[in-house]
Amino acid sequence: MSAMITRKRHRCFDGWQSFHEHSSALTGTTMRFAVFTPPQAADRRCPVLWFLSGLTCTDENFPTKAGAQRYAAEHGLFLVAPDTSPRGAGVPGEDDSWDFGTGAGFYVNATTPAYAKNYRMYDYVRDELPALVHAQFATRPDAQGIMGHSMGGHGALVLGLRHPERYRSLSAFAPIVAPSQVPWGRKAFAGYLGGDEKAWAEYDATALAAKLPPDKRLILIDQGAADEFLAAELKPELFKNACAAAGRPLELRLREGYDHSYHFIATFVAEHVAHHARVLHSS
Amino acid sequence: MSAMITRKRHRCFDGWQSFHEHSSALTGTTMRFAVFTPPQAADRRCPVLWFLSGLTCTDENFPTKAGAQRYAAEHGLFLVAPDTSPRGAGVPGEDDSWDFGTGAGFYVNATTPAYAKNYRMYDYVRDELPALVHAQFATRPDAQGIMGHSMGGHGALVLGLRHPERYRSLSAFAPIVAPSQVPWGRKAFAGYLGGDEKAWAEYDATALAAKLPPDKRLILIDQGAADEFLAAELKPELFKNACAAAGRPLELRLREGYDHSYHFIATFVAEHVAHHARVLHSS
Repeated sequence: MSAMITRKRHRCFDGWQSFHEHSSALTGTTMRFAVFTPPQAADRRCPVLWFLSGLTCTDENFPTKAGAQRYAAEHGLFLVAPDTSPRGAGVPGEDDSWDFGTGAGFYVNATTPAYAKNYRMYDYVRDELPALVHAQFATRPDAQGIMGHSMGGHGALVLGLRHPERYRSLSAFAPIVAPSQVPWGRKAFAGYLGGDEKAWAEYDATALAAKLPPDKRLILIDQGAADEFLAAELKPELFKNACAAAGRPLELRLREGYDHSYHFIATFVAEHVAHHARVLHSS
Repeated sequence: MSAMITRKRHRCFDGWQSFHEHSSALTGTTMRFAVFTPPQAADRRCPVLWFLSGLTCTDENFPTKAGAQRYAAEHGLFLVAPDTSPRGAGVPGEDDSWDFGTGAGFYVNATTPAYAKNYRMYDYVRDELPALVHAQFATRPDAQGIMGHSMGGHGALVLGLRHPERYRSLSAFAPIVAPSQVPWGRKAFAGYLGGDEKAWAEYDATALAAKLPPDKRLILIDQGAADEFLAAELKPELFKNACAAAGRPLELRLREGYDHSYHFIATFVAEHVAHHARVLHSS
């Protein structure tokens, strides 16, 4: 396991908000991530809630803008926010778009020749980073939940659906629920996974909801009704229908007037943290 | 009065976080500012709490990072965050330093030849911007409070001490309390006000606390004990001693482990908003 370097550390809600980096074997780059350590961790190991960020974000957006530390401190949860892609991998063209490549890893293991070597964000988020976090912090590997926003909502849904034993609680803010069917997702999947759309299904929450084994856990999704990406990129009704058909409990809340920004996340993050805390503290 | 342009507007905690600009007669530049409109303002006029930001900040830092909207929504207060200086005034050298000129107006009316024409942040924050805000929003001009951080804590203390009839409640996070006695303040005051230190006293909270008429309002200050600027630039004990000598009620809370960052502000801003709400709703 690679060494962890602590870049910054701030006292915050009687816990600590810290920012770290390490050399990732999976991506071949230096990867950054952010951790909120709740005050309760001084006395005992605490559950971990993962937050996956959206397009263009780094590890800093969520800890800076969402205001979730207050609630994590109340409930005694770690918050961990990974970065959204490798950076500086040196793949030709990776910096050309805001919605593909750097800042837009889409939480998949790329298979196309250009990206397969470095863009392994699925395994990075699922395996490599948790191993480091559990070794360095007083976390409970048996009590992890996952949430995310937009592209990160997609990542959270896919990881949570595919690994219910690992992620005991699951929620999302304005997620891309059907990447195979929308422009952002189709561009990313073609670039990372190639043109064979059968390979896309394992990273598509709507496709996974239909084909994975039954699961009675409640999934929580908040979606702004005034979200500028709602109709073209997010389409939560596709996931809602798939969950209904498969008998998966889903609470999808359409929030009148709210857009895609962190002001939307900040408004509802208390309810998401409480949702995860209920599950994780009883597991 | 100049026209107000709304740049962005986001639903947030059942209210609205909006970002605006207007052409300022006082600074001769386009000035930006941010407003949180609480949900209660749909039905009635609400008090206003001003937040003055610190060095290098714009109007966006506070609404993005402090998480204060939740508490303003609970208490029914507007939050208004001005920018920290004129921008693009064209004064030679104004962009050379991070602690003087652009992003560092220090809330004074400059008198030196280079800066006197544009750097009139004291009158801008006290008069021009409030007139615009009261005309455009459902605010109560008779119920205003002021707070700020670092350089903005200095600005809040000076405005609040000199105009108790205007700012009924007053607090600060890690303020520069004695700018005439510390490097940041001495550099700024020499540049904006010239070498005659007698002129500096009207912008120095510690000097003002000693010479202004008695005032029994409680001033609230939070200060991180691990603040990297505490010993050299902030020196809250100078203000504490001046308040004690003048019989001014001051609650100065030293917060163990906290630094100068927005993580510190976010942790304690709920208590500040509650302090202002108590005063403003009873005025």
